[in-house]
Amino acid sequence: MEKQTYTVTFYHPEPVRIEANKGKDLLSAAIEAGVFIHSSCGGDGVCGRCKVIVRSGDIRTEPSGRISLEERQRGVVLACQTTVHSDVEVEVPAGSRLDLDHVSDEQLKLLRLKGMYSQAVDVAKGKSVIEEDLFTHSPLATKLYLELDPPSLTDTVSDLERLYREIRKNRDIPIMQTGLTNIKRLGRLFRESGWKVTVLLGKRNGTVEIVSVDPGDTSDRNYGIALDVGTTTVSGQLVNLNTKEILGTKATHNKQASFGSDVITRIIYASERDGLEKLHHAVIDNINAIIKALIQENKINLNDINGLTCAGNTTMAHLLLRVDPRFIRREPYVSTANFVPVVRAAEAGIKINPRGLLSCVPGVSTYVGGDITAGVLASGLHRSKKLIMLIDVGTNGEIVLGNNEWMVSCAASAGPAFEGSGVTCGMRATAGAIQRVHISGGSVKVETIADEKPIGICGSGYIDCLAEFLKAGIIGRNGKFAEDLDSYRIKETDSGKAFVLVSKEDSDADSDIIITEADIENLKRSKGAIYAASAILLKKMNLDFKDIKQFYVAGGFGTYLDIEKAITIGLLPDLDRKRFTFIGNSSLAGSREILLSYEAKKEAEEIAKKMTYIELSVESAYMDEYVSALFFPHTELQRFPSITEVKK
Amino acid sequence: MEKQTYTVTFYHPEPVRIEANKGKDLLSAAIEAGVFIHSSCGGDGVCGRCKVIVRSGDIRTEPSGRISLEERQRGVVLACQTTVHSDVEVEVPAGSRLDLDHVSDEQLKLLRLKGMYSQAVDVAKGKSVIEEDLFTHSPLATKLYLELDPPSLTDTVSDLERLYREIRKNRDIPIMQTGLTNIKRLGRLFRESGWKVTVLLGKRNGTVEIVSVDPGDTSDRNYGIALDVGTTTVSGQLVNLNTKEILGTKATHNKQASFGSDVITRIIYASERDGLEKLHHAVIDNINAIIKALIQENKINLNDINGLTCAGNTTMAHLLLRVDPRFIRREPYVSTANFVPVVRAAEAGIKINPRGLLSCVPGVSTYVGGDITAGVLASGLHRSKKLIMLIDVGTNGEIVLGNNEWMVSCAASAGPAFEGSGVTCGMRATAGAIQRVHISGGSVKVETIADEKPIGICGSGYIDCLAEFLKAGIIGRNGKFAEDLDSYRIKETDSGKAFVLVSKEDSDADSDIIITEADIENLKRSKGAIYAASAILLKKMNLDFKDIKQFYVAGGFGTYLDIEKAITIGLLPDLDRKRFTFIGNSSLAGSREILLSYEAKKEAEEIAKKMTYIELSVESAYMDEYVSALFFPHTELQRFPSITEVKK
Repeated sequence: MEKQTYTVTFYHPEPVRIEANKGKDLLSAAIEAGVFIHSSCGGDGVCGRCKVIVRSGDIRTEPSGRISLEERQRGVVLACQTTVHSDVEVEVPAGSRLDLDHVSDEQLKLLRLKGMYSQAVDVAKGKSVIEEDLFTHSPLATKLYLELDPPSLTDTVSDLERLYREIRKNRDIPIMQTGLTNIKRLGRLFRESGWKVTVLLGKRNGTVEIVSVDPGDTSDRNYGIALDVGTTTVSGQLVNLNTKEILGTKATHNKQASFGSDVITRIIYASERDGLEKLHHAVIDNINAIIKALIQENKINLNDINGLTCAGNTTMAHLLLRVDPRFIRREPYVSTANFVPVVRAAEAGIKINPRGLLSCVPGVSTYVGGDITAGVLASGLHRSKKLIMLIDVGTNGEIVLGNNEWMVSCAASAGPAFEGSGVTCGMRATAGAIQRVHISGGSVKVETIADEKPIGICGSGYIDCLAEFLKAGIIGRNGKFAEDLDSYRIKETDSGKAFVLVSKEDSDADSDIIITEADIENLKRSKGAIYAASAILLKKMNLDFKDIKQFYVAGGFGTYLDIEKAITIGLLPDLDRKRFTFIGNSSLAGSREILLSYEAKKEAEEIAKKMTYIELSVESAYMDEYVSALFFPHTELQRFPSITEVKK
Repeated sequence: MEKQTYTVTFYHPEPVRIEANKGKDLLSAAIEAGVFIHSSCGGDGVCGRCKVIVRSGDIRTEPSGRISLEERQRGVVLACQTTVHSDVEVEVPAGSRLDLDHVSDEQLKLLRLKGMYSQAVDVAKGKSVIEEDLFTHSPLATKLYLELDPPSLTDTVSDLERLYREIRKNRDIPIMQTGLTNIKRLGRLFRESGWKVTVLLGKRNGTVEIVSVDPGDTSDRNYGIALDVGTTTVSGQLVNLNTKEILGTKATHNKQASFGSDVITRIIYASERDGLEKLHHAVIDNINAIIKALIQENKINLNDINGLTCAGNTTMAHLLLRVDPRFIRREPYVSTANFVPVVRAAEAGIKINPRGLLSCVPGVSTYVGGDITAGVLASGLHRSKKLIMLIDVGTNGEIVLGNNEWMVSCAASAGPAFEGSGVTCGMRATAGAIQRVHISGGSVKVETIADEKPIGICGSGYIDCLAEFLKAGIIGRNGKFAEDLDSYRIKETDSGKAFVLVSKEDSDADSDIIITEADIENLKRSKGAIYAASAILLKKMNLDFKDIKQFYVAGGFGTYLDIEKAITIGLLPDLDRKRFTFIGNSSLAGSREILLSYEAKKEAEEIAKKMTYIELSVESAYMDEYVSALFFPHTELQRFPSITEVKK
């Protein structure tokens, strides 16, 4: 029997066509077509994120409680629950799009990265915690131009030993390695180049590898890439390994998001047939695209990218290397490797110099990964005499507490709400995302990223909303809408009572941009989880928030973080605002440090070894603390005196 | 235009057929067909070794001075100079066959190896130079059975670090490495095996590699292969790496001999198109065949062969690894690598455990390779307080002089005569080779290997011949036949005067088995080169043959070496016979030591570093000494008093 194939056209809004077998689901077809659609549950029909509109054609779809009657009438279906039975035309509404292409690199850099990086660096400098050139310049990949003594009848040392001899002049390299590939080339290479060659040395697992040998002097062409592979965003920075100069930064959404927005969903997806393969390739595609863009912009040859470092949470590191992450989510929650040996980047499918190296930043535990180690390294927490708390707000919220003598860390399952997932109109911090909200009297004013027409709400927008709702009395401290509220903005939806932030007419969205009571509950749980985790970590150490001299807040909720409002909702503790600094992407900064210095790598290993990981799920006090935090700002008002005063 | 192909049938004597394009030469066709024909010059038509008889078919052949009129009439041609222009039937006469198949493994072992190895070991024991268990048992590949502590909520160390932790218990392994391939398997493997695994550790360039991890306890299955890759013979020994037991030994002719019998011809051949490739594959085929035979005989799985060591001269090591050897023969005679890093055997195409390791014994210089280092290691020369000389008689004759304080070495281009090449009826020491000769009165008695009908003469046969000729006055001290000789055995040939050792009728050869004056000249040069090299080496050190307390003679000229006759012809100096010991294949013995002990490997490296190489071609005294040695036993008779006495 011949297989029947149909043409599926996605309007995204530009038409993208793909051939699909009869019975194929629209989500898979979209992924294959390179059309990125939100999806949090890995295609189980649970999250309701992958809504598309079928314009024409014969489809079969499962009924879903996530689709309202009105939506059903307009042809809205869940892509993952809908199969193809003829040629089909599908519209991907703005709210379902993973909008990778419509934000220019410049905007992205401006909006999400540049500010954050420069801030992180400034913080470090300002506080004199990280000094410039703290670490000896000893990059992952080093080039040496050598003029070898040609052999003679009285100096007949072999080509390889001649090379070793020259390299070891004034250099203490007890263990040096090289592969057969290089050895095979030496004879001809040395003679054709007149004994003038450039060797590329790589630092590999406690030894030095002769990565490659090239004719002539190419020592001025030596670049590397520092990566931060986040659950949501993949960022890469091009660095001149000789001069330490940062030549450019690019970021993109992690394509894996199509398979689930949090690490747990992705681990589940990885356990399914071809799942690991797909997740692996998704992030490798991201990385290769970032590298390609960076080298084109800087007119650099791919072969001159000789090394890269990667900071990512433990699951991201596993997926990057195509290591099965399934045991991470099974008790007792053990990863396959936290200290991954240096490998060739090509082994992971990353396209740089084919012999170039990939060094992963060591992680502490299953839920505190290399991104946190890198963050600590960059922030200098581990060298500080003063007590510091580092809070990285993400789908998994990680918290580190300590100083130059000790460090403890924990992870709170905060959920993806602050990254704009799992909430009705949530979106990531890209163009069109509402990132600031002001409510005054009856009027609502919103600011979007890149000043585009609003599409949805990103993390910092939700923080603002909640704080403004509280101040305006729209919600109570329990997060419920006030009983006596009389506003045209309050309406009943399929999911219960909701506040209309922006009406459909004023937006670029498919329907009103709303916040439901369920969304508020979600956000409350997120902030509660992070606050409770911070509090428990302190309690475990017989300390109090007051004892902390400096709070570093890292994360990707938006371009700006309004510390005042984050305290208002109880995400951050009520302390002198001067103690807080939003340090942006500290993980990328740490990744770069490690790329540029073997000392930094060793220090990162020390950080990872030294840090004690505390599994909160086994702490009985955690649940009490968490429940207490499920109020705005907190059940115990005395913990937030300045907020309470404002309310009076 | 369509390519015309013809069928070429080689009678070897069994028919072997192959399709060949029009114009293909018969030597190439034979090699492709797996029919091994002698050839010393790499197909240049110079050596005259590849004689075949065309029975039928249309061929074109170049005239050659190597073919006599009588031969031409019988259809004899040089295979390398003859091309195919129709279907052709070709007979490969016995004298041209590289007779790999007609000698049983048992015979080979008996004839060429077993005796020699046991002798070598006995020597060592007898002299108390090598003691049993001199080196700590620390083989190239070690297996450890581990029962890991399963992880718990209070012990969440990752799988890889858990493995490292367990391996490092009571073991000092500062640098441990492993590849992504293993890491990817750990999660499932540990859990499915109930945390009971066997790790294979390999010693690799100063670090320890986790080569592989397998479920359950397989620690009793750990084998290795020690190789001696000689220009003429490739030998392999199967060893139980746990118990050090030798389970079997196999040897075969080096298939590379078809492309040239000495290293120089092969280096030239390697420089031609596909030459390196062909030479590489030839020896790898040999090695794989030896390994296959050994594991089948011992019912061992290929995957349990976890490491191999290879001792070979520098050119053999290059060809084995497919490293271009061309610079070895260009002044100033420099090899690409004498100290080759440990690589995966699979990288060289050797079929054992796909992740198993290959360790090459370090060499001293271009013409003193790992076989000599291994020989010194096995003989214990470098630990001896007494002065020892080690003479390895081969196509390249290597000589080592020294004791536990110093060592010097040199190489003499002896030519292949003592290995039965480059002489009219020479052959390697296989079945049918004349290896002993007795001449008494007019009668000539010969003994052949395996008591088969004589085909040709091997090295020890030639030594006997020359000594007997001298004693019987058949040749003079200059190597010329006596003027007044009146024997039916003397005849005139195309190549001048010759002595008929065995007539065609009494042999299995294609013509009379003869020794010509040119052959004697060849042998005289060989023995002269080795003697002169020994003498010069002593002179350089202000020493004399008398100062040497022990001579070790290694080499492959036959099953037995008659020391008395070797002295009679002036190959060895005239000293107390008790000082001489024929130690057989000391290279293989050393290769095995290194397979079984990392200490031995380090000691071999020390030997190679410590040994001073002396290039004889730059010693002006060498030529004088060589010319003086071009008499039997020597120009200066006083150097051979006992021989002179006998002659009286």
